Amino acid sequence: MPAGLMFSMNALMNTPFSFDINARDGDARLGEITTSRGVIRTPAFMPVGTAATVKAMYPEQVRATGADIILGNTYHLMLRPGSDRIERLGGLHKFMNWPRPILTDSGGFQVMSLSKLRKMSDNGVTFQSHIDGSKHELTPERSIEIQCELGADIQMSFDECTPFPATHTEARTSMELSMRWAVRSMKAFEKRAGDHQALFGIVQGGVYEDLRGASIKALTDIDFPGYSIGGLAVGEGQEMMLKVLDFTMPKMPVEKPRYLMGVGTPLDIVEAVSRGIDMFDCVMPTRSGRHGQAFTWQGKINLRNASFNEDPDPIDASSSCPAHTDYSKAYLHHLFKAREYLAPMLVSWANIAFYQDLMSQIRAAIKAGTLDELRDKVSAAYAPKE
Amino acid sequence: MPAGLMFSMNALMNTPFSFDINARDGDARLGEITTSRGVIRTPAFMPVGTAATVKAMYPEQVRATGADIILGNTYHLMLRPGSDRIERLGGLHKFMNWPRPILTDSGGFQVMSLSKLRKMSDNGVTFQSHIDGSKHELTPERSIEIQCELGADIQMSFDECTPFPATHTEARTSMELSMRWAVRSMKAFEKRAGDHQALFGIVQGGVYEDLRGASIKALTDIDFPGYSIGGLAVGEGQEMMLKVLDFTMPKMPVEKPRYLMGVGTPLDIVEAVSRGIDMFDCVMPTRSGRHGQAFTWQGKINLRNASFNEDPDPIDASSSCPAHTDYSKAYLHHLFKAREYLAPMLVSWANIAFYQDLMSQIRAAIKAGTLDELRDKVSAAYAPKE
Repeated sequence: MPAGLMFSMNALMNTPFSFDINARDGDARLGEITTSRGVIRTPAFMPVGTAATVKAMYPEQVRATGADIILGNTYHLMLRPGSDRIERLGGLHKFMNWPRPILTDSGGFQVMSLSKLRKMSDNGVTFQSHIDGSKHELTPERSIEIQCELGADIQMSFDECTPFPATHTEARTSMELSMRWAVRSMKAFEKRAGDHQALFGIVQGGVYEDLRGASIKALTDIDFPGYSIGGLAVGEGQEMMLKVLDFTMPKMPVEKPRYLMGVGTPLDIVEAVSRGIDMFDCVMPTRSGRHGQAFTWQGKINLRNASFNEDPDPIDASSSCPAHTDYSKAYLHHLFKAREYLAPMLVSWANIAFYQDLMSQIRAAIKAGTLDELRDKVSAAYAPKE
Repeated sequence: MPAGLMFSMNALMNTPFSFDINARDGDARLGEITTSRGVIRTPAFMPVGTAATVKAMYPEQVRATGADIILGNTYHLMLRPGSDRIERLGGLHKFMNWPRPILTDSGGFQVMSLSKLRKMSDNGVTFQSHIDGSKHELTPERSIEIQCELGADIQMSFDECTPFPATHTEARTSMELSMRWAVRSMKAFEKRAGDHQALFGIVQGGVYEDLRGASIKALTDIDFPGYSIGGLAVGEGQEMMLKVLDFTMPKMPVEKPRYLMGVGTPLDIVEAVSRGIDMFDCVMPTRSGRHGQAFTWQGKINLRNASFNEDPDPIDASSSCPAHTDYSKAYLHHLFKAREYLAPMLVSWANIAFYQDLMSQIRAAIKAGTLDELRDKVSAAYAPKE
């Protein structure tokens, strides 16, 4: 190994995970997560790279929009191409040409939403692949092993995502299982991972204040370097989600990063930031982009609509992203009509650029103490119409 | 209009079309076509942008591979989004964000291969759109009108592509019709187009030497600034195609660019260059790329093949294109298995980069007088296996 590479790998392994809060606006926090693969400016939006690719985008584009970190899905990658194969090929970062931080989920959510013929036990869950029907097992230990084979910088404790709706008893049983799994996840992580990696605990408890509180208590007893909020954005609606955040966030450790999993719309994000959330991920910008829906500062538009067929203006004139500046809505409308690859390519790019621009404006607003004004602006464009 | 823009547009309109030959190696020519939108280094390969996009590629990528010019399809664009609409939106260059030269075909070939319920007459052809069944007419005058609305730098005379096989009588009747249409195409072009644009005549005549000769005679009487060879690569096979070139090329005007339409494989291209062809277009690199077939200097490979599932090497290690240098065959294999957009994106890019690298090596070999050696190298990788 060349001396230079050896040096940089040592430097990589020797940068421990840390989090600093640099400014506050109400409960909102402006911060920086330091990892061995780079700094993550928070509040951060993580584009979703499910199968080792942010769909229809080049990694350089994802970075150029301002993304400091992306998310990979343990469930998808364990099934195809296999985490052992990715490890032999040098890890997920190298495999997908993304040298910056990667966060992986635990696989728990996708097992429940995608796989077939599941069997749950206290030990874990056995299931059949939705791709080829092959049998697999996920336990806290196996989930961490996979996340370590992938080489994820930020990993998630293995959990059961409590469905909505759930009775108090159901939510309690589910949360308590996740908390036992959190203990085992941390043990497995400490055995295998390095100081440059971090394991987050996932708060469950459904929509019940006492259960969310008990979950936070159990996790802080283990002492994670970061905490995720799971079990939201699963059908409860924005109003209920914000209500749960209202009673959950005050119980959360202040000095650790807080990640709201799977959220959300631009307004969801601003509202959650104002309640103290630091990290987000969501498939919405890329999935919507593939279907012709584009995010703008005036709201969402559908480029398939015939009203755009001769519109010479860009999706959003205020963006500096080439996906906005170099192409007209008329052209994008044409590309969707003609089912051209460039259609999802350009609008996924434009939407990730919009989301990163939103995060950049959120961070600037926290610093300036003007987050309320930004929330009003986003609300005017994205609040549900009466 | 700002003074600067006015100036640059005047400069644009005032650069007349021209062609210079700077070196020869046997019958092969190294040259430059000068147009108002930039210089085209010949021999040139033109990526195909059928529906106002080179499929699955950004225009900046197409340019970065070394492409000086791309091709647009009159038939597709007249049907969707319509050449009148493209004209109102500022022309095809602006519409698709490609500021460099564009060549358009006449629409004749696609009308015959794609449309339904055609009716031919000496005046032209009426047909139904393959997209929505709407009725349209193409005549020499209408084809030129469309190409001018698109704003093409190099346009094609309206022709009938003689099918293969065709009897001598069929090929003669068809060729003579195309020659009458060539006269009308030039008249229409002179009425409407500017000095910065050029109209090429298309040589027809099937596989018959006397007919190819008569076609060239008819076209040179009109005196076009460039000549295309039509009616090849339509099923006659490489051996027959080269035989037709062998007797056709010596009859072609020497000082004008020669364009072999719809060709071809890497070996087709080197063989045709050595017979005096200057320009090529083909869907092969992008179409193959979308299906997982990649061009390398050792031949074509199919990335879907399981043998690549853990191959850490790039498609072709000699390429400097990021599609080659930044991604392994194992990753590309995974992307095709997972049906990810990035699969066709990366391999279309890699293949266009290979084709442009081939053209670059061809141009260098003509200059160095080593085209025979390059032909041997390409033949070793791409000649049909016994």
